[in-house]
Amino acid sequence: MHHMHDTTPKDFKYEHVAADIAHLIESGTFRPGDHIPSVRQLSRQKKISVTTVLQAYYLLEARGLIEARPRSGFYVRTNLPSTLPEPDISSPGPDPTKVSVRELVMMVLRDTLNPNLIQLGAAHPNPELTATKKLNRILASVARRTGDLSGLYDLPPGCEALRVQIAQRAVAAGCNLTPGDIVTTSGCSEAISLCLRAVCRPGDTVAIESPICFDTLQCLEVMGLQALEIPTHPRDGISLEALRFAIETTPVHACLVISNFNNPLGSCIPDDNKQELVALLGGHEIPLIENNIFGEIYFAEQHPMVAKAYDRKGLVMLCSSFSKDLCPGYRVGWVAPGRFKPAIEWLKYTSSLATATLPQLAIAQFLGSGGYDHHLRRVRRLYARYVASLTQTVTRFFPEGTRVTRPTGGFVLWIQLPDSVDSLELYKLALKAGIATTPGYIFSATHRYRNFIRLNAANWSDEAERATRRLGELIAALA
Amino acid sequence: MHHMHDTTPKDFKYEHVAADIAHLIESGTFRPGDHIPSVRQLSRQKKISVTTVLQAYYLLEARGLIEARPRSGFYVRTNLPSTLPEPDISSPGPDPTKVSVRELVMMVLRDTLNPNLIQLGAAHPNPELTATKKLNRILASVARRTGDLSGLYDLPPGCEALRVQIAQRAVAAGCNLTPGDIVTTSGCSEAISLCLRAVCRPGDTVAIESPICFDTLQCLEVMGLQALEIPTHPRDGISLEALRFAIETTPVHACLVISNFNNPLGSCIPDDNKQELVALLGGHEIPLIENNIFGEIYFAEQHPMVAKAYDRKGLVMLCSSFSKDLCPGYRVGWVAPGRFKPAIEWLKYTSSLATATLPQLAIAQFLGSGGYDHHLRRVRRLYARYVASLTQTVTRFFPEGTRVTRPTGGFVLWIQLPDSVDSLELYKLALKAGIATTPGYIFSATHRYRNFIRLNAANWSDEAERATRRLGELIAALA
Repeated sequence: MHHMHDTTPKDFKYEHVAADIAHLIESGTFRPGDHIPSVRQLSRQKKISVTTVLQAYYLLEARGLIEARPRSGFYVRTNLPSTLPEPDISSPGPDPTKVSVRELVMMVLRDTLNPNLIQLGAAHPNPELTATKKLNRILASVARRTGDLSGLYDLPPGCEALRVQIAQRAVAAGCNLTPGDIVTTSGCSEAISLCLRAVCRPGDTVAIESPICFDTLQCLEVMGLQALEIPTHPRDGISLEALRFAIETTPVHACLVISNFNNPLGSCIPDDNKQELVALLGGHEIPLIENNIFGEIYFAEQHPMVAKAYDRKGLVMLCSSFSKDLCPGYRVGWVAPGRFKPAIEWLKYTSSLATATLPQLAIAQFLGSGGYDHHLRRVRRLYARYVASLTQTVTRFFPEGTRVTRPTGGFVLWIQLPDSVDSLELYKLALKAGIATTPGYIFSATHRYRNFIRLNAANWSDEAERATRRLGELIAALA
Repeated sequence: MHHMHDTTPKDFKYEHVAADIAHLIESGTFRPGDHIPSVRQLSRQKKISVTTVLQAYYLLEARGLIEARPRSGFYVRTNLPSTLPEPDISSPGPDPTKVSVRELVMMVLRDTLNPNLIQLGAAHPNPELTATKKLNRILASVARRTGDLSGLYDLPPGCEALRVQIAQRAVAAGCNLTPGDIVTTSGCSEAISLCLRAVCRPGDTVAIESPICFDTLQCLEVMGLQALEIPTHPRDGISLEALRFAIETTPVHACLVISNFNNPLGSCIPDDNKQELVALLGGHEIPLIENNIFGEIYFAEQHPMVAKAYDRKGLVMLCSSFSKDLCPGYRVGWVAPGRFKPAIEWLKYTSSLATATLPQLAIAQFLGSGGYDHHLRRVRRLYARYVASLTQTVTRFFPEGTRVTRPTGGFVLWIQLPDSVDSLELYKLALKAGIATTPGYIFSATHRYRNFIRLNAANWSDEAERATRRLGELIAALA
């Protein structure tokens, strides 16, 4: 229960409840298929709120222990995952590294575009769990209503109606933002890229979580930046102790974290740690680039805080987009860049002038109508279920020695394979079987995660399950 | 007739015809309101093609000498512009300059967004001459038809249907491109920015035309690049003599031109010069970034060649977009980067991942349907007329000593005011009168064009005409 030390009292409570129920299941009190106590019942018994119980149950569902049945309550899953251990905290090397994973990444990307492969690796959302169709209808109506005006340049800071909605929603993540604090961008990628350009010069060092999604590493490489990979806990994210040590021994020009549901770890930096992270960096005047792209896809009851909520110095640059939860192809993201806002506006202007107008207007209207929240409730529930199903399949069909993360949000798993398995060898073998995975190598500038892979649960289906089993056989053959 | 030496025989012919008619008008043979020879008549008389005559007449129309009346033919304009001289060839300083026009540009941009000002400066197309409404209808239907699939990431090189259309159209500009030669981008701005990042490192020197639109200068500044401003002829674009001298005396890492209808000059590099330019740069292995964003808005009969047509070494990176002629707010552009394609794809991936999907699909369909050509015919005719009208108003109401360019495409004029007029002082004075202009300062890294302004003819209207007259009064007061 290591991670409990770092959580807030409130989180502590629902995790406690979840741990109790998990114990009862693991010890055989509740067996596969059994009905577990109803939410109201447990709430009364334990004198805790219905909310807290629900939060605990969602967490158990995410971990594959229980499942909800419509109008009937929660049941112990019939095929329980034999609880595989989590991977250890990462231990990347201590020196900043010139990033160089380009060729591997471009190869993996090309395979991502191949429609003949079953895509188990790419962290794309499930097309059916985007809101594309609804957004397209809104887009069409906005386009009709606004006529020629919808075709104009929407120069930085970008669409005001959208910035209003983003500022309103930020309250749930603990942030007081005004529309004037926000600049819209072409997706979160552009937001991150602009932030790095605003605060770093070529040769500078950026402290990052490790593993971290290869987009980020590529973005550093292209700018000639050094990646300083900080040990990262699979649940609690970046290690503050290691970061503190790094800052005191190496010049660090920026820090970049995926605070809520790191890709690929699924880790979520506990709120107290976020506060400490902001204080630590603030003490050294180091900007924090906070990627919250998965923030809305939490499995518990409410949006975790963002580090930006603790920002008093304007040093935190909060980035996000609607690509994981609404529609990747709309390319609408944003950044709340604190004191760097003038620089960000200028960089946005010089690198792509403006973000496409209609997609911003459509998303603004969707958010304003309340449709987003309705959509997210469904999405969170289903992704939690898919993550549980994938976890279970990995547990049953991957060879002994496999370890797997326990994400509390997002839709990817980070899987440590037996030491003898080379993820690149596996990658090639799987391709021949018509399956695309994502090899661990590309999640580190030092090609560190040789025996790791990322799997995406978002597109869970019978076909994906069969492919995952097949992958297990290939891994067993290599192990 | 200096520029004739550089044009091809074909161009020579219609310009000759135009010059003859202009002479007849200026000498009083044809007077204001007179019907000039019909196209067929002149074609028979001079034994030249109808096409050539039409080309000549469009040019005369663009220069404000004649006007077409529906179903009636061409007439001498009743208010003839008293033919003001053109500005001289520019003479920017010989040293590369660290660009620094940021503050001025951001101020001008803010005023561009102010709906209470009459916008005479910003080079935005006329909303009514974009194809936004048509595209919006297509977009809506594509969105309905493709459903969730239209929401997916469209990773580099981007939308194939669009790349096919772009490659097909490139033939008219003399280029043999395949869809595989093209990468789509978020507008021409992003294309240019990616090209510069692909071939330059901070501190490198880029040879550019002077004056050149401030977006380009800002893009250089943000990357820490040095601008080497090359003297540029108001009709024929970059001076090859000066460029040759520069290359032989200074290390030049890239060259950037707006080959067809420079913004703000309206200059068009003659096709022979384009060939020579490509050969000159190729001999030194210097990449050429060719911006052709205004290329489709020509007033003559056909699309001028692009420099890319002469590229044998893969050193020319042809950039364009649909922002000036179809729809700025869609943010769809492209680049044919020659040998730099892998670098461009990688840069695109790391800086914004993908271009918005639906706008690309909609434009691809519009292009495929032939709607684009129909649209362009109307747009070219009207912009030519508006440019003529603005020229005439400037001629009548601006004080003595004013000079003005003779664009053969695009929709902006570059105006040299009497020496005593400071364009920044004028800018502030005009703002108080509710009019936004674009001061010459920001078109040079050395703030060279103190007594120049850019005016945009695209939104010509009675209101724009009144504002232009008022501007003339303000200038007269400063002169």
